[in-house]
Amino acid sequence: MPHRIEIEYCTQCRWLLRAAWMAQELLTTFDGEVAELVLRPGTGGVFEVRADGHLVWSRSDEGRFPDIVELKQRVRDAIAPGRDLGHVDRAGPRVD
Amino acid sequence: MPHRIEIEYCTQCRWLLRAAWMAQELLTTFDGEVAELVLRPGTGGVFEVRADGHLVWSRSDEGRFPDIVELKQRVRDAIAPGRDLGHVDRAGPRVD
Repeated sequence: MPHRIEIEYCTQCRWLLRAAWMAQELLTTFDGEVAELVLRPGTGGVFEVRADGHLVWSRSDEGRFPDIVELKQRVRDAIAPGRDLGHVDRAGPRVD
Repeated sequence: MPHRIEIEYCTQCRWLLRAAWMAQELLTTFDGEVAELVLRPGTGGVFEVRADGHLVWSRSDEGRFPDIVELKQRVRDAIAPGRDLGHVDRAGPRVD
């Protein structure tokens, strides 16, 4: 099923590279499941990720960026809830 | 004016990084003029760039990838015809 993932990022904050990196991670993990990965320039500190229109991450709500594992889990929950992400799901919290 | 640029690339050919790099170049050059930069996974050797729905590069038509300068010029011609691209426009063909 073709899904649409959107990453809106603040250009003033210079978050393009961060957004583009996450875009590549999501396109690689969800190979064959994503029809469009949209990079959307924004302003004012915005960093929001949507999957099929559902907000799966908002930096202003969460107070931080997602790590890539939790971002993939949230996208998975939105577009492919039954899908096992392999090592991504088995990665527990680090005990440093 | 908000424009939409789309890069469709072949995943089997492993062109994601190439497409993502061009995406970042276009977002940087056309800062403030692009509403959406869409990465669209495809198959079968496809590499096509569209600006507001107009095909500005097709690898199958041209027989090669664009260099980044000519890609920016074609996108500019489609979305902002009067725009001077600065050093991009002054870069003539190389005489090696």
